[in-house]
Amino acid sequence: MQPAEARFNKNSLLLALRRYSLAVSDMEQTILLPSLLRDLPSDELWDCEAAEETCTDLYDNYLMLKAIRNTVESGHVPLDDHKAKNSTALNKSLEPLLDADPEVLFRFHLKGLFSVMGDLTKKTQSLTEKYMDIIGVAN
Amino acid sequence: MQPAEARFNKNSLLLALRRYSLAVSDMEQTILLPSLLRDLPSDELWDCEAAEETCTDLYDNYLMLKAIRNTVESGHVPLDDHKAKNSTALNKSLEPLLDADPEVLFRFHLKGLFSVMGDLTKKTQSLTEKYMDIIGVAN
Repeated sequence: MQPAEARFNKNSLLLALRRYSLAVSDMEQTILLPSLLRDLPSDELWDCEAAEETCTDLYDNYLMLKAIRNTVESGHVPLDDHKAKNSTALNKSLEPLLDADPEVLFRFHLKGLFSVMGDLTKKTQSLTEKYMDIIGVAN
Repeated sequence: MQPAEARFNKNSLLLALRRYSLAVSDMEQTILLPSLLRDLPSDELWDCEAAEETCTDLYDNYLMLKAIRNTVESGHVPLDDHKAKNSTALNKSLEPLLDADPEVLFRFHLKGLFSVMGDLTKKTQSLTEKYMDIIGVAN
C-alpha cells in the first residue's frame, strides 16, 4: 500500500479510514481495563440529546468504536445491521433526492463518510484521554 | 493488495470501488471515438426528470463517469466541488439527523457509497453497450 498511499493528501477517504483504525488501536492499547468505563455517562463524548442510543455509558461507546473499526478494516458493508431502523429514517428523509443525480450522491456519501470518520477519530481520541484521566495518568 | 482483497466479499466497499474503476477502464478501451456520443440524449441511461443536470448528452455522461473514476482512484475527497449547490440541498434535508448518531451516519454513508458505486457501474456498462450499438458491434 505504501506507494499508493504516498500520493494521498489529507482529504483522502482511505487515509481517514486508516487514521480511525490507528486511533482505535491506540485506544485498545491504552485502555487495559475497559470495565473501568462502565456506568460512566458518555454525555461529554456524544450529543446525548440528539442520540439517545449512544448515550448509555463509556463502555458501550468503547465497544461501538471497536465494532466500527472492524467494519472499516473488513471493508464489509453491513446491508442489514441492527441500526437499520435509524438508517431507514435517514433514507426516508432523502427519498426525493435519492434518485436525483448519481454524481451528486457519490460526492455526498464520499464527503459524508470522510466527515464521519474524522468525527469518530476525535471521539476515539477523547475516550482514550478520558480513560487516562480516570486512571490518573497525565497526557 | 491481493492478500487483503481475497477476504473481501461481494458487499465490500473497496471491491465496489474497484469494480467501478474496471468498468470505466473497459468503457475507455471500447469507446475509441467518444465524440460519436455527442448530441445523443441520455434519457435511457439517467432519470432525466429527477436529474436535469446529468441529462445533457451521452458524451457528457462519458466525461462525468471518467471524472468520478479519477476521484475514486485518487481517493481525494473534493470538499468544494462544482456540485456543491446540490450537495448543500442534500445536507439541508439531513440537518436534523446529521449530529444524531455517528454510528448510524457511518453505516448510512458506507451503504450509500456502496449503493451509488453499484449504480454508477451499471450506468458505465450501459453506456459502453450503447456505444457498441451505435457503431453496430454486437455484444
